[in-house]
Amino acid sequence: MVSDKGLLIVLSGPSGVGKGTVRKAVFDHQETNFKYSISMTTRQKREGERDGIDYFFKSHEEFETLIEQDKFIEYAEYVGNYYGTPVDYVKDTIADGHDVFLEIEVEGAKQVREKFPDALFIFLAPPTLAQLEERLIGRGTDSQEVINHRIKEARRELSLMNLYDYVVINDDVDTARQKIQCIVEASHLERSRVENKLRKLLLEANN
Amino acid sequence: MVSDKGLLIVLSGPSGVGKGTVRKAVFDHQETNFKYSISMTTRQKREGERDGIDYFFKSHEEFETLIEQDKFIEYAEYVGNYYGTPVDYVKDTIADGHDVFLEIEVEGAKQVREKFPDALFIFLAPPTLAQLEERLIGRGTDSQEVINHRIKEARRELSLMNLYDYVVINDDVDTARQKIQCIVEASHLERSRVENKLRKLLLEANN
Repeated sequence: MVSDKGLLIVLSGPSGVGKGTVRKAVFDHQETNFKYSISMTTRQKREGERDGIDYFFKSHEEFETLIEQDKFIEYAEYVGNYYGTPVDYVKDTIADGHDVFLEIEVEGAKQVREKFPDALFIFLAPPTLAQLEERLIGRGTDSQEVINHRIKEARRELSLMNLYDYVVINDDVDTARQKIQCIVEASHLERSRVENKLRKLLLEANN
Repeated sequence: MVSDKGLLIVLSGPSGVGKGTVRKAVFDHQETNFKYSISMTTRQKREGERDGIDYFFKSHEEFETLIEQDKFIEYAEYVGNYYGTPVDYVKDTIADGHDVFLEIEVEGAKQVREKFPDALFIFLAPPTLAQLEERLIGRGTDSQEVINHRIKEARRELSLMNLYDYVVINDDVDTARQKIQCIVEASHLERSRVENKLRKLLLEANN
């Protein structure tokens, strides 16, 4: 039997844009069929957290050994602790035909792009970009100072979104969720994916 | 004011696949905001048909003059009459920021691909491809002869879908409609489109 490979979906964006809230909305939605990749961390387990469910908890030493063994898709250090996405779970799950959904920081997304160039990269943009658009086309009443500040911010955000395939503006959580699901659905319908799958089936039928 | 260009959406596929039915479902759906491109023809106007609404009706001579002037995105001759898609309406409408939806034959789609390489090409595939998949992965009970026939058909269809961006299998009209709308929505969220639009806004804000 031929199984179609799943997609690796990466949701990222500037900090404070609401990535966690949107990710939660995606996973809470009944039609969602994504697998969630559990992160690994060296921070202390908190009350109620379970190893292998909330995080994989590792010692500093264990984590650094895994870094040396290239066992992370991406990792970073925050406030003295490591956080990372283990590569094996992601590879195995997409090989089994399931979509894996990662919600990570912009720096981590850059690392993923290098290791999984075929992944689907979605940039969650702040509603200021949408507001900027509204203001600039003349419906707004902001002062020049406010507009200048928005333009500066927008430039910075434009430079960040460079590596991404899609941009979703987070002006409403449920709309953002629905757009992300549409992007994933459309990606599954890309001709190259459908064609590869059918070609494999036909080859197999000849054997 | 900067307006974003609309998309040219081309739905095509083998004859008999149900392109017309799916196109009707797309246009009947309340959320649809596509413009429909009216075809031009040299055939006789039928009872109840109106010029400029059902078709633009032209004489053979007028049509051939327009062909010479390169005024069609695509045209073809069936049973002694010309049918074609006038280029001006499509160009003006997408320049105004509206999406234009064309439902045309495979030969016409090839012509459009040459003139509008950035258009969104969706191949509507017959459910036999989906059925083939089911059979081949062992759930079916078809004879080898039936499977061989399906494989032959599938090969032909695979060779047709080569120029397309997306493939939608028409096993259910409403599902196909929903997938097409998702593809169009996702295309509007492609980073290159969003980025260009925002860049233009920012440039304009500086002037």
